[in-house]
Amino acid sequence: MKISRRTFNTKLAGGLLGVSLLSKSALAYNFDKKNQRKLGVALVGLGGYSKWQLAPALLDTKYCYLAGIVTGTPSKGKEWMRTYNIPKENVYNYDNFDEIAKNSAIDIVYVVLPNSMHADFSIRAAKAGKHVICEKPMAVSVAECDAIINACNKAGVKLSVGYRMQSDPYTNEVKRLVKEKPFGTVQYVSSDAGYYSGGNPNQWRLNKKLSGGGALVNMGVYAIQSNIYGTGTNPISVSAQEFSTRPEYFKDTDETITAQMQFPNGAVGNLFTSHNANANRLFVSFKSGWVELNPCHSYGPLAGRTSEGRGISFPHRSQQLIQMDDFAKHILTGSTNFAPGEMGKRDMIIVEAIYKSIKEGGKTIPLNLGNMGIVSI
Amino acid sequence: MKISRRTFNTKLAGGLLGVSLLSKSALAYNFDKKNQRKLGVALVGLGGYSKWQLAPALLDTKYCYLAGIVTGTPSKGKEWMRTYNIPKENVYNYDNFDEIAKNSAIDIVYVVLPNSMHADFSIRAAKAGKHVICEKPMAVSVAECDAIINACNKAGVKLSVGYRMQSDPYTNEVKRLVKEKPFGTVQYVSSDAGYYSGGNPNQWRLNKKLSGGGALVNMGVYAIQSNIYGTGTNPISVSAQEFSTRPEYFKDTDETITAQMQFPNGAVGNLFTSHNANANRLFVSFKSGWVELNPCHSYGPLAGRTSEGRGISFPHRSQQLIQMDDFAKHILTGSTNFAPGEMGKRDMIIVEAIYKSIKEGGKTIPLNLGNMGIVSI
Repeated sequence: MKISRRTFNTKLAGGLLGVSLLSKSALAYNFDKKNQRKLGVALVGLGGYSKWQLAPALLDTKYCYLAGIVTGTPSKGKEWMRTYNIPKENVYNYDNFDEIAKNSAIDIVYVVLPNSMHADFSIRAAKAGKHVICEKPMAVSVAECDAIINACNKAGVKLSVGYRMQSDPYTNEVKRLVKEKPFGTVQYVSSDAGYYSGGNPNQWRLNKKLSGGGALVNMGVYAIQSNIYGTGTNPISVSAQEFSTRPEYFKDTDETITAQMQFPNGAVGNLFTSHNANANRLFVSFKSGWVELNPCHSYGPLAGRTSEGRGISFPHRSQQLIQMDDFAKHILTGSTNFAPGEMGKRDMIIVEAIYKSIKEGGKTIPLNLGNMGIVSI
Repeated sequence: MKISRRTFNTKLAGGLLGVSLLSKSALAYNFDKKNQRKLGVALVGLGGYSKWQLAPALLDTKYCYLAGIVTGTPSKGKEWMRTYNIPKENVYNYDNFDEIAKNSAIDIVYVVLPNSMHADFSIRAAKAGKHVICEKPMAVSVAECDAIINACNKAGVKLSVGYRMQSDPYTNEVKRLVKEKPFGTVQYVSSDAGYYSGGNPNQWRLNKKLSGGGALVNMGVYAIQSNIYGTGTNPISVSAQEFSTRPEYFKDTDETITAQMQFPNGAVGNLFTSHNANANRLFVSFKSGWVELNPCHSYGPLAGRTSEGRGISFPHRSQQLIQMDDFAKHILTGSTNFAPGEMGKRDMIIVEAIYKSIKEGGKTIPLNLGNMGIVSI
């Protein structure tokens, strides 16, 4: 298995040269901090995101580690067992997944499956007594989000959505400027999240049955999220428009969507999301200054600046690493859950309102979200 | 009269220290280049834009100079005569303005009045046989734009709209990238043009009878323009939304408007304009890269960069200077008119479609503009 250059360099920097990945993973298994063992994470679904982002990050997390996997492909399972020193008893398939309930080595189940399978596996994980990280978008409907939240509440387990941006220091710097108001109040926020999709036309993201939607549910949730943390409040209304350029490729899912939001203090939000255009930006205009991130939603390194000419720069760390450690800390210490289930549900309410507005010719859809999913830094 | 620091510095740099402004203006009057005298410009309306931007720029223009003024305030007239060495016979008021027809020292009339007066004075200038620069927005309706264009055609005079950005080197660098396609074709363009208006509530810009509209006609035309030069084509449809936060201040005119455009090649445009928020940006996303300007629509110095990390930077020159010289050159040599009347009319067609879309709840309004107002660099 190829380890990313970033992970490799981190290892070098950490003075771990010569200690094999296998040994480090094995050491991690027994790691003890304040008599607290690291929480064991099981990844459900071993696609690209698990392989290239989550698993490498879990080599460096402090409060959790890769303990198990759930895969429908036995050969993949074997490869991962070798690479990450995962014992056989922590490897599941989609049929025997529920037996994970009996496995005390697994504390957290991270659902990294196609969107339409999020609810099913998140609920089964909760029923198995495991804490849940559900990849974004949380599900393909508000009803499914509710079902996940209810299942986790009933089981008394913690729930988080895979919103890595909520743990990112650049995101948090924007939140800080919004909260501390050095430039005054927010008047306008603009966010773009899109990429040009030209690959395999049979990928699950282009299949509505599996994805629940196109650009909006995949990238649009980032634009929704950054509009919200860029104002610190939930929108009170939304309107939206859909655009199509390559219907032969985007047969089943939305290609490009623009949306507008109004916020309680009068700030206006402008959103763009697309599978047909690259854009990766956030701009927040305050009464007397601005902040922007570009890139804003990708894995990093991100970049930003303010109207004062000050560049925003933080040492690069894996967002997924910080995200999973934040959630593990939340479980272990009761610290803040930066991406709770209510946040995922709120975003799905907005997603559904955007689709509704499009269906109704761009009509403004009122929203009554209160502070749902708003997490203070 | 206070001369701006920029103009003053230009003078220093030019080695003209010691030559008084009066002498320079007087010299300019007799300037001869290839047996071609500088064209005489008369400014109609001596408000802030004439005083702080146009008149100082006309001290440095190569192909035209400030020859006359039209003002309703005799004391202002006297001050300007002194400052710019303008002979008495070149000073008019709004009543005797039409006598300018007899004055061979005036070649160009630049109409810098409130928007609702643009058509009347542009048409009278044309009838007087003078070339016309009409400040943006060209007029308060498409019908008025047509009347101006027809009057200029009938009189055989040249017509330009005060779109200084069309002569700006940063704008032209974006046009070049769009035309030469080093990053491929345009997929997305986003433009914001707004400022926070909190001054005199009785200013003419907030009075619809004088302005013809609010943020959209004042700043929105910049966003429309940059969406168009950012794609190199006219939109084929537009939809729009209006937002209001301070109705007690914006009693009569639009405060904030968002709009979306579709372009013939499928590119999508996203626009924001406001009198309630500061924003001054252009972003063009090509298939394999991007360019942005920020600031984009102000008097400069502007700034820009591309996805390659390359900063876009040009020596700062007055946009108004370049704009007026470009138009004078057009008259003198037949070179390109970078902001013809058809461009102003096209933008007013889009403005009217935006207002129509808002009135109809965000409905998409088809546009049939062809290449109207598209000027190749």
